[in-house]
Parts: sequence; structure tokens; C-alpha cells
Amino acid sequence: MGILEKIESPLDIKGLNIDELNSLSKELREKIIETVKNNGGHLSSNLGVVDLTVALYKEFDFSSDKLIFDVGHQCYAHKILSDRKNNFSSLRLDGGISGFPNVEESGYDAFCVGHAGTSISAGLGYCTARDKLNQDYTVVCVVGDGSLANGLNLEALFSSHVKPKNFIVIVNDNGMSISKNTGGFYKLISKSTTKRGYLGSKKVLRKIFGSSFITKALASFRDFVKRVFSKNNYFEQCGFKYVGAFDGNDIKELTTILQQVKDVAKNKAVVLHVKTKKGMGYVEAENQPDKYHGVGKDLICDNGTFANALGQKLNSLIEKDSSIVAITAGMKDGTGLVAVEKEHPDNFIDVGIAEEYAVTLASGMAIAGLKPVVAIYSTFLQRAYDQILHDVCLQNLPVVFCLDRAGLVGQDGKTHQGVFDISYLSHMPNMKIFAPNTDVEFCDLLDYAFKLNCPVAIRYPKNSSLQIQNVCFEQSLWTQIVKGEKLNILAVGPNMLSLAISCAEQFDGVGVISVRSIKPLDETVLMQIKDKPIIVLEENSAIGGVNTLISQFYAKNHIGVDLSALGVEDKFVEHGSIENQLKETCLDKQALIKEISYHINKIGGEK
Amino acid sequence: MGILEKIESPLDIKGLNIDELNSLSKELREKIIETVKNNGGHLSSNLGVVDLTVALYKEFDFSSDKLIFDVGHQCYAHKILSDRKNNFSSLRLDGGISGFPNVEESGYDAFCVGHAGTSISAGLGYCTARDKLNQDYTVVCVVGDGSLANGLNLEALFSSHVKPKNFIVIVNDNGMSISKNTGGFYKLISKSTTKRGYLGSKKVLRKIFGSSFITKALASFRDFVKRVFSKNNYFEQCGFKYVGAFDGNDIKELTTILQQVKDVAKNKAVVLHVKTKKGMGYVEAENQPDKYHGVGKDLICDNGTFANALGQKLNSLIEKDSSIVAITAGMKDGTGLVAVEKEHPDNFIDVGIAEEYAVTLASGMAIAGLKPVVAIYSTFLQRAYDQILHDVCLQNLPVVFCLDRAGLVGQDGKTHQGVFDISYLSHMPNMKIFAPNTDVEFCDLLDYAFKLNCPVAIRYPKNSSLQIQNVCFEQSLWTQIVKGEKLNILAVGPNMLSLAISCAEQFDGVGVISVRSIKPLDETVLMQIKDKPIIVLEENSAIGGVNTLISQFYAKNHIGVDLSALGVEDKFVEHGSIENQLKETCLDKQALIKEISYHINKIGGEK
Repeated sequence: MGILEKIESPLDIKGLNIDELNSLSKELREKIIETVKNNGGHLSSNLGVVDLTVALYKEFDFSSDKLIFDVGHQCYAHKILSDRKNNFSSLRLDGGISGFPNVEESGYDAFCVGHAGTSISAGLGYCTARDKLNQDYTVVCVVGDGSLANGLNLEALFSSHVKPKNFIVIVNDNGMSISKNTGGFYKLISKSTTKRGYLGSKKVLRKIFGSSFITKALASFRDFVKRVFSKNNYFEQCGFKYVGAFDGNDIKELTTILQQVKDVAKNKAVVLHVKTKKGMGYVEAENQPDKYHGVGKDLICDNGTFANALGQKLNSLIEKDSSIVAITAGMKDGTGLVAVEKEHPDNFIDVGIAEEYAVTLASGMAIAGLKPVVAIYSTFLQRAYDQILHDVCLQNLPVVFCLDRAGLVGQDGKTHQGVFDISYLSHMPNMKIFAPNTDVEFCDLLDYAFKLNCPVAIRYPKNSSLQIQNVCFEQSLWTQIVKGEKLNILAVGPNMLSLAISCAEQFDGVGVISVRSIKPLDETVLMQIKDKPIIVLEENSAIGGVNTLISQFYAKNHIGVDLSALGVEDKFVEHGSIENQLKETCLDKQALIKEISYHINKIGGEK
Repeated sequence: MGILEKIESPLDIKGLNIDELNSLSKELREKIIETVKNNGGHLSSNLGVVDLTVALYKEFDFSSDKLIFDVGHQCYAHKILSDRKNNFSSLRLDGGISGFPNVEESGYDAFCVGHAGTSISAGLGYCTARDKLNQDYTVVCVVGDGSLANGLNLEALFSSHVKPKNFIVIVNDNGMSISKNTGGFYKLISKSTTKRGYLGSKKVLRKIFGSSFITKALASFRDFVKRVFSKNNYFEQCGFKYVGAFDGNDIKELTTILQQVKDVAKNKAVVLHVKTKKGMGYVEAENQPDKYHGVGKDLICDNGTFANALGQKLNSLIEKDSSIVAITAGMKDGTGLVAVEKEHPDNFIDVGIAEEYAVTLASGMAIAGLKPVVAIYSTFLQRAYDQILHDVCLQNLPVVFCLDRAGLVGQDGKTHQGVFDISYLSHMPNMKIFAPNTDVEFCDLLDYAFKLNCPVAIRYPKNSSLQIQNVCFEQSLWTQIVKGEKLNILAVGPNMLSLAISCAEQFDGVGVISVRSIKPLDETVLMQIKDKPIIVLEENSAIGGVNTLISQFYAKNHIGVDLSALGVEDKFVEHGSIENQLKETCLDKQALIKEISYHINKIGGEK
């Protein structure tokens, strides 16, 4: 019987000795690897942080203390150790536990997270409340994976030169963002680390981690503590005691340090800097942590139809026009830009998890004569809402946005759904929005987008297996896929188009139109179909979606139409299979057939 | 004849000696004060930066070099000196020049700005393009007024430890944000300044500015330069040479330093740190720079109906419930929270220009048991779109957002219009949105909002002189102001409600309903009025506005209605009077009467 099996409560961990804790780590890694192999998930970052999590559970009581993970894709060990050991095998599945911290799932999850940069702000909010309500607990934030340099975390760090007591920020430094981070912030941290040398007492600190650390013997533990806590650095000027850097994969070292840090934190907030190895315990992930950041079942990495097309197409465009520059924010693999980095490194920029900077940088580049393409997932681009509106659209600049993972995203769940982009982009003046259905259409669209000389957003899901005849955008904005004498379904994106086609087949006279251009609408087509019922079908919030643009077009022209709007309902959609998510939000066959039938019954003629 | 009068081109400034430059500064200040007295505008920050601007024009040629102001409310002297001397009296007026940099207005304005934090990113974009296109100019960013600590600027600073050549960031440090900034970042800067002492050669640097600066005689200018440029600090680790701090109101000193900085920048990016005095040259503004930040005609400061009500109401609520905490982002005067700071300082937080942090901090506070109220102008809250959605709404947390300056804002113009908030908030699940019409209604609504225990957004313009009978929200979401047998106008907010009432009076049977609750809609009322024509009237983008929520409600219930949607058109609305802006975007009497007449003519019965 393993150690993990024996643990019935997180408090049991406190009774384990170092050997047992090390065994526990090993078992956790096995469980994580096994589960991710079965279900897919985030592997590298979760493996890296196992030992740190075990050490934290040894020293803290998270039934009262608060553990807040930045980004959240480091929470697997925490989930197993707190109260989800027995249903961990349901990770990311329909009805199972989430791959991210989720306050609705467990009292041990202090904050819902999925986007980067929130932990220090949220932690400071917790501390403010705790102190105001005269409560007594410690707030521990674990910030890793490049998100420390996100603007939100930086704002929180710099917010005040006084920080609350019993507030511990653990900087989990694995030397990279999701993609490798070479930013100023990291240089700054690593510089302060190097200068200081490796701070450890003979007695408790043995390991040397990385080439820039030099073990130095210290006379006594008291001297050691004094040295660790007395030097000024960057974090200290933001109101923290800075402690580090330590080996975040050494449980013995960590538990000793955490005891000290807990004590120090009683008087002053602490930044504890640890170095961990991404993918630790799974050799392939250790060697290629980016590749194993987020993986599917059987650890397969597949970037998807559109990402592959984007990389290739941009490379061919750059060969003809070197003023095209591809920008991403820590997502070069997922967006396909890694291909551009390889072939045209001078036309590629990865800014790290700094979506706002990516967009305003692009606006500066565009106004100065370049043609920037910003490729960021739909859910993450919303972090740069103001920059798109105020810096790009206001100046009507030719920036092309490529929004991958638009629509329902499946297993990543409610924090990552790409179902708001049409709603947050469509009211921005000067913005044009498109939704291609195939890689061929996408490539044509990119050609078209560069000619438009204005802000363009292209949104698409990860994959498409749709096969439709290609029609050039200059010829026609929308395309009629199936003729319809009785009613028309206006479908947005490949998933909805497939659904519409398969349902239309079951009826006579039900047409299907591909709404490839969301803004502008194809007003010619809208005028042609105005006398028949219309069903708008979109994988986006129904509020602010394509249906509202269409309603408005008709209202403006005083045309009364019989319009149904099928979009994502006004709620957050939980993790699981995309199939199930579509069903849950009434974007499945059953719902569409019901809606078609309603109209057909009114006018007569079902097959 | 003054110096200013003689200047025909910016290049003429290069020929002036120090005495003439000082006279020019004096004349510029007079012109700025006179114009702001006539037209209203931003006084304190524009006066503070006059000498710096003059020195910049002496040393640079902004017909090719790029001058990018952060926030933009420091650009008046620049506008006068470049090419808008003769029409400067039209500042902020209908058809006149903008109060902010505007690329459509002049080739000397390198970037449209109004929101904070964009300059370093935009500047880096310019440099990237310049170097890629083999062009040759210097990019100068002037960052002041607290916006350096905005997340976007911080992301750009930390983006890389290598920065481009011929890139100069001037930190215009006037010791405060719009409200006084006491953040960590400022302590950090001022610390590095203090430590280093006041760096100046005997020959060129004489003035002592502020108590923390100590003049130190240096052996030679070479030594001076060496000392200035050799020490490491915070900015240096981000890839800059740091130079400072100098007296930003001393033109002689500045021109000498700028010559050096230009030279140094040929090899490495430079941060030049200057200290300026806000309001310099106008005693009242020097003494109360916050008060004179943005003023109306005759320098009158008026915070408006709702801001005054918010401060008072929150104070009375806090007396009963100390868990209510008011948060703003550098806008305590404009939002009315200054009253809370005065009476309940422990229940007040000003985070500086860090809207994202304000919102996620609030979410942390809310989840931990407090009742945060976040008061930020409509146009600035859009900077925290993701934090509202991902940190507040996702967790359904009880954070009350107060969006002042919603709707058309008049003279601040296109960068500041509050016409997108309904569109960017309405598709967020769990969010409730309200639009009160009077201060009494607003106060009632605040009571109601705290009871709802979920995210609530309250949007309102600066002023309302409307007098309507008060109906409690628990009794009815919408109120019928004028009965209508023939058609109903659904008006959102006091400006639209006043307009609706005045137009309805001219017809028989035209009703007016106050849409005080935007989300949820009052479905009972919607069902009652469904058989008559409806005109939705809102001071928000028509796209994603209230009209779309209403259309959707009817579509969902398969009810065909005759609905007109009058909202702000899909374009950016320029500065000027609100009256003119309403006219320009067809939200005036003429447009509404035309729309009413259309419906009345269809059904017969005009007065």
C-alpha cells in the first residue's frame, strides 16, 4: 500500500517524514502521468510543482490557509492531496473534476483561475479582507510559468511599498513561460539570484541546482537567516522580504525554508523564490517541456487544422513581404507560429504572457509601416480588450488578429471558453471579423485580410474536418452551402456549419448559409432571404453575437423578420467534451431540429 | 511681438537661446491657461510639462522623430509648438482640435492616446518598424502622471532585457498620479534617485529640486557622464541606460542633458528621469494639482450629480456596514470617492492607474467576505474587461461596479467616450446592469445592489437634472414615465429619458418607459408592450446594446415585434459638446421625432 493511498486527510501529510514525503511525490507523479495519459491535460508544469506542493501541505493547513495558484495549470498535486484523490481519474471529463482550481469544486480551491496574472492581486484581496475582518490565516500564492511578468501581477507587486503580513508569494521559476521567456523581468530575478550566490546553511541545504548557484558554507543557521533576509532587492522595494533561490524539487530543503518563511511572514510579506524543473519525473517532458505543456489523450500534441495552416501560410506570405511580423503571447506552439519562428525568426515575436503589450506593440508597428499579425487564443485576447479598441481600432490600423480556440474548447472548461470574442469585438468601430471554415478558406482569408488595410479579427476553433467548395472572399462574403426555399440557417464557423448541414438534410427546403464574414454582414444575402424564417447558429454567446448584428440590420431597415437565435446560453460552460458542451448549451442536433421543426410546422412541409 | 508669435515652424525653436526659450515657455503657459479658462481642459499636467516640451523641440525634429505622450493630457504645449498654434483656441470645441494627441489632426502626433500606459509599447512598436524598414529617427516617449506603473507599461518595460537604440523614455515624475501615488514603483524610483544623489556637473547643473536631491560637485563633465551612465538600477536591468533625476522645469539643464541623452541613445536606449511640478506657473494649480487636473470653463471643478451622491451614500452605508470598501483607480475626485477617503479612510483604496489590479483585488476581497465597490469611469473600466469576466463574474462575486461618465462625454472626445460598457458587460454571465436616472434612484439602487449578492454594474453620465418620481427597484425594474397606447420608447439613462419625454409630448399615444435595469430586462413589461411598435433609445453603441438584449428576448419567445434601435452609431465620436455629439450620432430630437413619425404614420394619428 502506497503512502498516497493511506492519506485520508491533508493533515495526515504533516505526520510524514522526509522519506515518506519523497515517496508521496513519486506516487503523485505516477498518478498525474497516468491520468494525463488517459484524459489529456497539463503535464510539464504540474509535474514540476509536485514537490513544492507536498512541502506546502507539510507546513500549511489549507483548510484555513489559502493556496492560490497563478494560471492554475499547476494544481493537480494540490487537488489530489486536498480532497480529490478518489475522483482524480475524472480530471477534465464530463462531470468530472476541473483541470483548474475551482471554488465550486472544493473549499481547498481558494480562487477560480485559468488566465495568468491574477494570484498576487487576489491574494492581496484575501489579505485585505482577512485583516479587516480580524481573521487569522496565511495566504500563499504560487506564481510560475512566466505569469509573474504579466501586467496584472506587476500592477499588484508595485501597488504599494507596504504589503500585508502572513502573505507569501512563491515565485516558481522554471526559467520559462509556456514558451521560453527571455524577458527583462527574468533577467532581473536571475541576476539578483546570481549576485547573492546560493544561500544555504551547510546543515539544511545541500543541493546545487543549475550552474549559476554556488554553495556557500555559513557559520550558523542564524547567520544564514540573517543573510537571506537582509539584502535589498527588487522585491524588497515592493514591500517583501525576498528569500531565494532554493531548489523547488527538494522537499527537505523546502520544508525547512517554509518553516522559516512562515515565521518571517508573521512580521512581513515574503517572496520565496524557488527553481523547479518543468516535466520533472517524465523524461520526455523534462527534455521538451513546451511540447508537453498541454497534451491530449496518450500525451499526443496536436496543434490543429488552423494553427498548422497559419504557420505555413505566414511563412509563404513573409517570403514575398518581409514587413509581415507574427506576434504571440506565450503561445507559439498552440497558435502555429512556431513554424514562423523556425523559418523567419526576424519576423516573429513572442512577448510572453503579456497580451496587452502584444497588441499595443502591434499597433505601434502598424502605424510605423509594418503588417503585424497577432495570434492569441480567443479567451486570452479578451485580456487586451482595451488595447484592441483604443490602440488599434481607434486609429484604424492594419493589425490582423488570429483567434484560435474560438468557440467551445472542451476539457479546459469555463475559464478558457472562446465564446465571447464576437461579443467583445463586434461593437468596436473599424473592426472586421471573419470565421473561416476550412484551412483553405483561412489561407484565402489571410490574403484578403492584408488587403483590407484595417483591423481584422479571424476566429476559428482548433480543428475542422469540413470539406466545402472554396469561394474567394472578394467574390462573396457569405456562401450558400445548401439552397433553401422555406427557411435558412445562417451558420458561423465549421462546427455550426457541419451541424446545420447535417440537420438541413433531414428536411425539404431548409437552406444553409455560411456566415464567413461576421462584420461586415453580407447585406445582399440578408435582403434576399428576409421573407423566410432565419435561424442564426453560432458558437458564441447569443448576447452580442452575430444574431444581434443581423437583428439590428433588419431593424434599421424597418424589416420585420422571423429570426431565431441559437448561441451559447448566458452562463459559463463547464469542462468536458465539446460534444457534451454543445448539447448543454443547446447547440446540438436535437435543439436545431426542434427549432427547424417549429418553423417548418408553421409553414408546413416536413419530410 | 512675443517669441511664440514669431515662430512659424517648429524648426525656428532650434535657433532660440535660453532666455528666448524661457520666454517661450512663459508665453505657452499664458496661452494654455487662457485657453483652458475659455474651453475647459487639462491644466495641471499640461502646465508641468511646458519646459520639457520646449527643450524637446530645441533638441529634436518631430517632423521625423516621434514624440509619444502617455495618457496624452500633457500635449498642449506640443500642439502649439508643432502646427496648431493658430487654432489652439478651438481646443476641445466642436470641430476644433482635440485635447489629446490625434494622428488624424497632425503628422506631429505620433499616436492617438487618451488611456494610460500605452507609450512604451507603442514606442517599441515604432522602433521595431523603423529598424526593420531601415529608417532613421528617434522615438521619444514621455511617461508621466502615474501611468508608468500601469500594467501595460510595466509589461513593455519588462518585455526584454534588450531595448532598441534611439529610443528614449522620459519619466516625467511629478510625484503623483492623477491622485497622489504612493505605490511601490514610485518608492523604487525615488529610492534609486536618492541613493545616487543629485547627479550634475558644476557647470551645467545648478538647481536643487526637492529635498531628497543633494548637489554634488564633480571634477569634470566626463566624470559626470561616466557616473550618470555607469550605475546599475532597475531600468538598466530592463535594457536602458538610466539618467536622472533632473529638474524638468529648467530648460537650460534639460537641453544640455537631452544633447547627451541623444548621443547615448545612439548606442543604447535611455530612460531620462525628470522631476516636474504639476500646475507650474498657475499658483492655484501648483497648490492643488488634483483639483485642477481636468477642469471646465472658468477652471470650475464640478464632479457631477452621481459622483456627489456616490460619496455621500457610501459613507452612510459604511457607517452601518464596515465591510463595504470603496476602490478607485486614480480617479477619487471624479468618481466622488474622495468623500469616502475623508470620512472612512480605512474603507477606501486608490490603486493608481491600475484598473486590472483594482478589479482582481476587489474579487479577492469579495470572495474573502468584504463588499467592494469599484468606481471607475466607463471608458477606463474597459481596461479590466478580462478581470471583470474571469475573476468576478466567473465566480459570481458580489462586486458593485460604478461606471461614471457613461455615454457621450463631450470634450474629452473619442478616446474617452463611455459608449461601449453595455456592449462589453451584457454578455458576461452573472452580471446585472443598471442605469439610474437621478441621484435618488442611484442611492436606492446602491441599497438594492448590495442585496443582490452578485456582480452588479451601475452606469450613469456625469450629470442629471431629471426630476422623476422615485419607484423602488424591488417593486419594479422598469418604470412607465409616460403612458403610450400607440408605441413605446424604451429609454436608457437620464439623457435619453429626457429626450424621450420631450419628444413624446409632441405626439398622442407615445409612451416612455425608463429602462433602469438593462440586465435583467423587465420581461413583464416587454410582454405587455409587444404588440405596439418599440423604439429603444440608448447612449451606447447600438451594437451589443440594450436593443440587442430586447430583440433576443422576443426572438427566443418567437414573438415578432416592430422594433427600432437608436443607439450610438458604429464609429468613434469626436470631441465637442455633448449636444453636438448626440446630434452627430442621431440621438437627438430630430432623429427621434423622425423615428416616432415613421411608426405613427404607419398606424395613423399624429397630433
